[in-house]
Amino acid sequence: MNQTIILKQRPIGAPTLSNFDFVNDDSDLTPKEGEILLETTYISVDPYLRGRMSDAKSYVAPFEVGQPINSGIVAKVLVSKNTNFKEGDYVSGLLDWKTKQISNGKGLNKVNNQNNIPLSAYLGVVGMTGLTAYCGLTQIGKPKEGETLVVSGAAGAVGTIVGQIGKILGLRVIGIAGSDEKVEMLTSDFGYDEAINYKTTKDLSSAIASAAPNGVDIYFDNVGGDISEAVLYNINQFSRIIVCGAISVYNNTTPQKNATVQPFIVKNSALMQGFIVSNYASIFPEAIQKLATWLEQNKLTHTETIVEGFENTPQAFIDLLDGKNKGKMIVKTS
Amino acid sequence: MNQTIILKQRPIGAPTLSNFDFVNDDSDLTPKEGEILLETTYISVDPYLRGRMSDAKSYVAPFEVGQPINSGIVAKVLVSKNTNFKEGDYVSGLLDWKTKQISNGKGLNKVNNQNNIPLSAYLGVVGMTGLTAYCGLTQIGKPKEGETLVVSGAAGAVGTIVGQIGKILGLRVIGIAGSDEKVEMLTSDFGYDEAINYKTTKDLSSAIASAAPNGVDIYFDNVGGDISEAVLYNINQFSRIIVCGAISVYNNTTPQKNATVQPFIVKNSALMQGFIVSNYASIFPEAIQKLATWLEQNKLTHTETIVEGFENTPQAFIDLLDGKNKGKMIVKTS
Repeated sequence: MNQTIILKQRPIGAPTLSNFDFVNDDSDLTPKEGEILLETTYISVDPYLRGRMSDAKSYVAPFEVGQPINSGIVAKVLVSKNTNFKEGDYVSGLLDWKTKQISNGKGLNKVNNQNNIPLSAYLGVVGMTGLTAYCGLTQIGKPKEGETLVVSGAAGAVGTIVGQIGKILGLRVIGIAGSDEKVEMLTSDFGYDEAINYKTTKDLSSAIASAAPNGVDIYFDNVGGDISEAVLYNINQFSRIIVCGAISVYNNTTPQKNATVQPFIVKNSALMQGFIVSNYASIFPEAIQKLATWLEQNKLTHTETIVEGFENTPQAFIDLLDGKNKGKMIVKTS
Repeated sequence: MNQTIILKQRPIGAPTLSNFDFVNDDSDLTPKEGEILLETTYISVDPYLRGRMSDAKSYVAPFEVGQPINSGIVAKVLVSKNTNFKEGDYVSGLLDWKTKQISNGKGLNKVNNQNNIPLSAYLGVVGMTGLTAYCGLTQIGKPKEGETLVVSGAAGAVGTIVGQIGKILGLRVIGIAGSDEKVEMLTSDFGYDEAINYKTTKDLSSAIASAAPNGVDIYFDNVGGDISEAVLYNINQFSRIIVCGAISVYNNTTPQKNATVQPFIVKNSALMQGFIVSNYASIFPEAIQKLATWLEQNKLTHTETIVEGFENTPQAFIDLLDGKNKGKMIVKTS
């Protein structure tokens, strides 16, 4: 059995298991010249996949109904007819949610375990997640030592890394997350100076003001919506707002309304910049090297929520959107 | 009589005449060594003054209740005890709303009528207004020939200049304004390719889509609020949103709510940047030269709404916020 997870129907609001289907792919698994046969080891589930399940205009083409979902995957080479890869190699790249698949190797990177970096980290801290944190914070945030950084979705995969890089770069770092356990984790495990549970805080804007007595110079925004509105009341002159995601509104079926941002932006000569990590591909080599070095030096802790079993991939994705992960959410499939 | 206009009380919502008072300043009008006596010729009324009448934290200190209002003014030197100025010179700079005043000359520029540039233009097209249009569009908008520019508040002082510079730089330019007369003026007098009356357009977002078949690359935003929300639905990948003002919400007493911007910003890797013109002081000489040259070459038309009489300054400001001006709103006082 070669199982494949397809998009059965586009979710309306929060995705449910009924939006996905498992089918048996009976296509030939014998690689031709130049091809490799891969067995999936780890699957990355990420908030941005929610966007691809809708058919709204976006930066990446939407998934097709009836077709496999794809995301960042680490896979093992079972058979190779491609001179760049040999049996037993591990690769990472954008691959289909299948237990096995044929690839021509294009776009895949070898991630044979070196430098004591665990395989799953290539989907996280030294993969797209770490690159997203590093590129957004350094290229848009342009941090200067002593400045104050606020991170929303701070206990998520990107957020935990952003906060740690912020500390390495000498910033005061304040995290916003959705449970006491996460908040505790941010300060005890990830070096956040302060963390705020937005679910139990009545006046979030005042809480941010207390945690950031010098105001907010950089805001790394993973969530959008009400939380980001509360941050806006605290931004400084020439502040930078890095818009990485808007997970709080991805499942909305009607547009979320918030205080209109222009008065805040103009009053503070503030910058707001959206991005996807591929915009910064030119600095990936430098970024990967820094992230790997920090990881080896134990300056970066990476936390994963690992779900076992290919069959649990859709539920893992649903749980991710519901904030049930701590750090990077990954499915281990073999 | 040396009349002075003071802020009597901070406006709540839209300013009214009762927020202002006229007092007679009986201080000595004899300049000491290094000083000059000025007679006000033209007063600039600008949307940003509304912000200074509130005591909210902002980029410029609020006006003090009981103290004179100030703004951009062109004045004539009546008596000079300062070697940099002689009797009969005209100067421009930030001065008090007084018919006469003493100055030490600091921060004032001589604007003796040269190059056929009318005096009032030093408050407009070759003054703060023109600089705002030029610096915002070029430094944040980074226009490339063939791109599409949308301007809100297009019939205002800044908007009319932005559109014309956009045409000079080879852009497709679409203006949004609040009357049929203004819309007509934008296309017939200022070279806008298309203009939309937002007050009579049912679905503004669709109207923008029709006028901008290739999407919006640059949005020069003077207004914020609902109009800007409609533009957001049409922005392109890597679009730039120049936040110059938010006149539509300045008079609001409760925060205006609009569709939360983060999903639009992140989906399009868009940039939103607020600014005040002084951020770009380093390019003022180059900018002034370009603006003056374009003006002499008749590539720039500047439209003014001139109100006669010092005593009508508060009403002119109220009318400005109400959109009754076309182009730059100026009070002629002598």
